[in-house]
Parts: sequence; C-alpha cells; structure tokens
Amino acid sequence: NRRGATENLLKLITKTHPADTAWVFRHLSELERKEVFDILAQTDQVGDFISELDESVMVPLVENLSPKFMADVISEMASDDAADIIEALDDDFGAEIRSQMEQADREEVDELLQYHPESAGGLMSPDFMYLDEELSVGEAIAKVQKRSEEKEMVFYLYITFGDGKLAGVVSLRELLTNPPHRQLKNIMKKNVLSVSTDTDREEVAHVISQYNLLAVPVVDASYTLVGIVTVDDIIDVMREEATEAFLQMAGAGKDREILLKSTSENVVLRAPWLFASWIGGVMALFIIGAFEEELTKVLALAAFIPIIMGMGGNIATQSSTIVVRGIATGRINMEDFHKIIFKEMRVGVILGILYGGFLGVLAYFGYAEPKLLGLVVGLSIFFSMAMAATIGTVIPLILKRFDIDAAIATGPFVTTAIDILGVLGYFMIAKFFLNL
Amino acid sequence: NRRGATENLLKLITKTHPADTAWVFRHLSELERKEVFDILAQTDQVGDFISELDESVMVPLVENLSPKFMADVISEMASDDAADIIEALDDDFGAEIRSQMEQADREEVDELLQYHPESAGGLMSPDFMYLDEELSVGEAIAKVQKRSEEKEMVFYLYITFGDGKLAGVVSLRELLTNPPHRQLKNIMKKNVLSVSTDTDREEVAHVISQYNLLAVPVVDASYTLVGIVTVDDIIDVMREEATEAFLQMAGAGKDREILLKSTSENVVLRAPWLFASWIGGVMALFIIGAFEEELTKVLALAAFIPIIMGMGGNIATQSSTIVVRGIATGRINMEDFHKIIFKEMRVGVILGILYGGFLGVLAYFGYAEPKLLGLVVGLSIFFSMAMAATIGTVIPLILKRFDIDAAIATGPFVTTAIDILGVLGYFMIAKFFLNL
Repeated sequence: NRRGATENLLKLITKTHPADTAWVFRHLSELERKEVFDILAQTDQVGDFISELDESVMVPLVENLSPKFMADVISEMASDDAADIIEALDDDFGAEIRSQMEQADREEVDELLQYHPESAGGLMSPDFMYLDEELSVGEAIAKVQKRSEEKEMVFYLYITFGDGKLAGVVSLRELLTNPPHRQLKNIMKKNVLSVSTDTDREEVAHVISQYNLLAVPVVDASYTLVGIVTVDDIIDVMREEATEAFLQMAGAGKDREILLKSTSENVVLRAPWLFASWIGGVMALFIIGAFEEELTKVLALAAFIPIIMGMGGNIATQSSTIVVRGIATGRINMEDFHKIIFKEMRVGVILGILYGGFLGVLAYFGYAEPKLLGLVVGLSIFFSMAMAATIGTVIPLILKRFDIDAAIATGPFVTTAIDILGVLGYFMIAKFFLNL
Repeated sequence: NRRGATENLLKLITKTHPADTAWVFRHLSELERKEVFDILAQTDQVGDFISELDESVMVPLVENLSPKFMADVISEMASDDAADIIEALDDDFGAEIRSQMEQADREEVDELLQYHPESAGGLMSPDFMYLDEELSVGEAIAKVQKRSEEKEMVFYLYITFGDGKLAGVVSLRELLTNPPHRQLKNIMKKNVLSVSTDTDREEVAHVISQYNLLAVPVVDASYTLVGIVTVDDIIDVMREEATEAFLQMAGAGKDREILLKSTSENVVLRAPWLFASWIGGVMALFIIGAFEEELTKVLALAAFIPIIMGMGGNIATQSSTIVVRGIATGRINMEDFHKIIFKEMRVGVILGILYGGFLGVLAYFGYAEPKLLGLVVGLSIFFSMAMAATIGTVIPLILKRFDIDAAIATGPFVTTAIDILGVLGYFMIAKFFLNL
C-alpha cells in the first residue's frame, strides 16, 4: 500500500548520505522527483540534500516551494551553502526568502552575497573558530569546548589581534600539548598564508593544493579575518574547473552542467565554435577552388585532401592540449617559450617524416601516374604536421602572453589556421613538383 | 664573491616553501640544478623538496647521490613519500638505499611497497593516530599529547577494537568536549567509511570528495586498520587524473609529465593515436578513389571535402568530450543511455540544418553548375554532423558498457568512423542527386 511505501522510502532516505540521495535524484523522472522530494522535505536532511544538488536540478525544484519553508531550510544550512542557493535563484524569489529569514541569518547571507561567486569571498564560510592572541591556552580550550555547534570542521585555529586582524594559526593539537597558562601569541605560527576576499577561486585552489593545506583564511582589505575556505570546497572547485576546461578544449562552451541542459541550450552553447570551424572550411573551399586547373590535370590529388588535413588537425590537437594543460597546471614557464616551441616543432618534424613516409610509399605503389605523386603527398603530410604542431603550440602561448584564456580561444584559432595553411601548402607543393 | 652568493642562496632556500623551490627548480638548467641542489642538500628541507619534485626531475638528480645519504634523507620523510621515491628509482639503487636504512624505517617502507602505487595501499600513510575503544577520553587526550612527532595532521582519531580492527572515529574536538572518564566506545561514531588496501585511487578520491572527508581509513582483508589517505594526497590524485584524461582525449598518451619528456619520448607517446587517424585517412582516400568517375564530372565536389569532414569531426569531438567527461564525473547513468543518444542526435540534426543551410546557400550562389550542388553539399553537412554527433556519443557509451577506458579508446574509433562515413555519405548523396 501507499502508506507503507512512503514509510519505507522515508527509512531509506534517512539512512542514505545526502550526497548519494542527490546522485540518485538526478536520474529520476520529474514525477518521481516530486514524490521523493515531498518525503525528503519532512526530514532534517533536506538542507544538506538541496546543497548537494546540481544547480539545474535544484532551481526548478525549489521554485515551487513557499518562501517561508525555504527560509527555514536555508537558515539551518551553513551560510556559504545558503548564499550559493540564493545566488542561483531568481532575484525576486531570493528576496522573498531573505525577507522571511531572521535578521542574524539574513545578514550573514547578505554579507556573502556581495562577493563574486568565483572569488574567495564567494567561496568562504564565515562560521569558523578564531581566538585573540592575548588568550591563554587554557582559555582557548575552554572556548573550543563551549562552542555549541560545529558548522565547519575545526583543525586550524586562527589567531587574531586588535579588532579581528589575522595574526597567526595554531592547530588544535598544539593547543593540547602546550601548558594552559601560555599565551596563544607565544605558541602560534606567524606568517600564516592567507587569501583576500577577491582572490580568484582558481588561485585559492592553487594555494591550498600547492602547500597541502586543509583550509586557508580569507582577509579583507584591512587584513581583518572574515572567513575560511576549506579543502572540501576546493575539491569541488577543481573538479568544476577541470570539467569546464574539457568542454572548452572541445569547443563545447563552458557550462559544466551541459549534460543536464536541454537540446536547444546545447545548440546555443556549441554553435559558436562550430562557426569558427565552418569559416575555416569555407576558406579551404576557396583555396581548393583556386587550384581547380591543377586539380583537373591530376584528379588523384583530391583523394589525399582528407588525410593531409586530418593528420595536421590531429597533431595540432595534441600539441595545443599539452600546452593548454601545462599552462593550467603551472608547468609551463613563459620564459621557456622558445624551448617548448622548438621541441613541439621537432616532434612534428619526426612524426611528419614517419607518416609522410608511409603515405608516400603507399601512393608511389598505388598510383602509376603522376610519378612524383608519392613525393608530393609525403612532403605535404610532412609540411602539414610540422606546421600544425608548431601552430598548435604557438597559439596558446601567445594567447597566454596576452592574458587571453587559452582553453577557450585555442580551438577556433588553431583549427582555422591549420585548415588554411594545410590545404594551401598541399596544392603549392603539388603545383611545384608536378609542374602544373 | 662565490661564498657570499652561496650564503644568500642558502638563506633564500630556507625561507622558501619546498613546493615553491621545486617549482623554480623545474625551470633551471642542468648545471643550475646541480648548484642549487648542492646547497639544498645541506638543509633539513631536502626531504620535503625531493618529495615535491616531478618524477622525471627527481630520478636523474637522486641517482648521483650516495645510497647512504639518500637513506638518511628518506628515513626522515613520511613513509608514504619515502615509498613513492623508492618505487620511482631503479630497482638496484632502491635496494641499496633500503639496505642502508634502519630496520624499523625499512620495514615501514617495505610494507608500503607491496601495494600497487595506484591503490589505496600505495597512497596511504601508515603514520596516524589510533586509539583503543576501551580507553577513556582522559587517557586518549594524554596519548595525543605524548605523541612526539606529528607526521600526519591529526583531525580524525580512529578507534580500534581487539588487535587493531577499525571500530569508529572521533574528532579531536569531540575529545575535548566530553568528560574525561567517558569511554571512547561510547562517544565514537560507528559505521565509519573506509576503503580497502586494493581500492583504486580514483575510487578513494571519489569517496573523499563525495562525502567531503578530510581523510579516509584504509583497512586490510581482516578489517585491521593499516593506514589513512588524507585529502591533500587526493588533491594531487585528482589533478593527475585530470591531466591524464586531457592527454588521452587528445590522443597524446597518458604520461602527465609529457612536457618534461624528451622529443623522442614525445614521439613514442603520440605516434599510436596518429596511426589510427592515418588509417582513417587512408580509408577515406580509397573511398574518394572509388568515386573518381563522379569527381571527374563535377570537379567542384573536391573543394567541399574539407568542410564536410571537418564539421563532422568537430561536432563529434564535442559530443564525445561531453560523454567521456560525464562518465568520469559520474554524471552519466548508463540507464539513461538512449536519452543521451537521442539528445545528441537532435543537437546534431539542428546544428546540421543550420550549417548545412549556410553552406547550401553559399554553394548555390557561388557555383552556377551543377544546379543542385547547393542541395548536395547542404545535405552532406547535415548528414555528416547528425551522424558524427550520434557516433561521438554512442562509441564512448558502448566502450564504457564493455568496461573499456572511454577516454583512451574514444578518439581513434570516433575519428576513423567519422572519416569513412562522412566521405562515403557525401559522395553517395552527390551521386544520387546529380545523377552521376
């Protein structure tokens, strides 16, 4: 019966981690989602569940709820998660929810909403433990014990001086191993690494991963401690940035929830880069048109167009992927500019000789006439690959030097350049060696 | 003078974080590296520095050192880092170093070396805090205070029963907020998430990121606690896996240190995938050869080959990247198989109509003869893009169903299939509409 089914589902949900419930939820139909959520809404997991959902699943679900209900749920959540949800919702609905929240909760959320969502300010949690440097170890332990709620995990205790300016850090363990009367300022580690509220989230991720930190404190312009970013937030950032970079490299926009988006949204996200490659193709078309006379004399030339252009395109993809990823992971030093380019050029030359040689032999034995066809197509593959490896390397490096996002812009530039130069090189080599 | 320069460098190095020193080091010449390392070797940062180096920089550097020196350095390191280094070195040299280590240190490292480097066992640290469940809170705090070295950061305290079997977990903070006489078994959280020594490191990363953990305990077959994997190790794993996936998608092997590798190593890593695309090109060559008669009659057909094949290849790259990344991040549920395919098919159809339409109009006004050329090339782009989007989606999904790594295998299969079908479709459409 209905009642029994609901009860079983309720039991199942309370035993499942909200992250897992959110994962299952993503794959349910609209109707099933509604039924499951009606049950979920009665449990105290509802807040954790909502903050685990993808934005494009969360927004339509939440929009049907009353602002009062959402205000109650959001007030229970960590304020950085609460701010993320309000940020994602329609402005009017967000304002209604905020008006239903208690003043203290609302102010905390409003504070966070003023920062760009991709900055340290937008990522940080303002619920964290800080202690004045004048406190003794004993007083500090008492404070830790008294703190009723553990909103963010405590592992570093940040130490402040004056009206909340960052002074240092101690670990909970150091607190335990020092005598109770000693002052915090005498045991703390000074020169603690921090980021500012407007630091880009990628830079925050870099700091945390480079120095193996579990959290990094966030300070405002006056060096006042205003929040912390924890490593679990950074893991999400890293995963999201990697997904965006993948999509950008393939020219599929940078919306990491693209799989959840509709057909028409997919079309809009993916059309621009295809347009760039369309332009490249049209230019190749004009170039081939210009060599019509030569083509009439040696028709066999047409059959080699795909392989010559394809080999160039593929090695260019390799080169630019290696360079774009090297830029993203900080492995490329811009001072090594010429070293990287020359290496890729050598790789292109060697692979060009290899695959040009293969094709040259194949063409020599496959086509009796013209005698030099093997030489022409072999040389053309060689030229196409050496040129493509070089261009595939140079373009992202130049974009980086001009501070243009290499992941987005590399694809269209490289594709178009390779298409045009590849086909032009081929017909010029043919014209020269075949005396056309 | 020489002496002064060395002293300044020494001062600089001791003030710099080893991770930053390692970053700078990567960009030095061989000679500079030697000089800097000679100074570094005198500081107590040398162990941290070596473990921050990329493998391909570390190995040649370390091979010139005496086994005794390396044994001393390695004994000071966290044993998981020590094991990683010995794993990377030549077997003989590794054995010499191990023979110079003290027995206790050597046994710890040998213990770790038995696990696959890409498993939880290969990733874990055996230096961690565990407490028997029968202990009281007071006794536990005393134990934490006594522990002299803090090799791994303490935030979770794992609780064991019997001869070291995992029973539960408490946080250091919970220890502080409970009365001293209470037994750990009465305050611990039971049902703690754990992984086994042979769990794949990607799965470990998934557990840590899915449940926002700072560490996960590793147990052996008898559920005995043998180590922990911390979130900072997982961050490195995630970055490495992302880099490997990028390279694989571009058919550039999966060696994440490819930028540091020589030209010839690059050639070896990158040649195989180019061979697959070479085969695709040769097949396209034969297909076009088979339509030589038709091509003679309408030479203009040749000029459209690059754009028709290019548009297919590019939309296929988008589709397969979206799907491969969706599989990697767990966003694709294999039960949605047909939904995903139909959506990509619709995207391909719409974009095919759009760009086919553009090109049809261009060809119609650009070429007086044959009259239907616009229709032919428009239809061909449409066919090429709809087919490519579908194949680009289906191939990774099928590979995944047969448990083949979609990131590696997608490229060659998709490229070859698209090349052959694209050019075949084009000439068949031309033959049909132009009555060739």
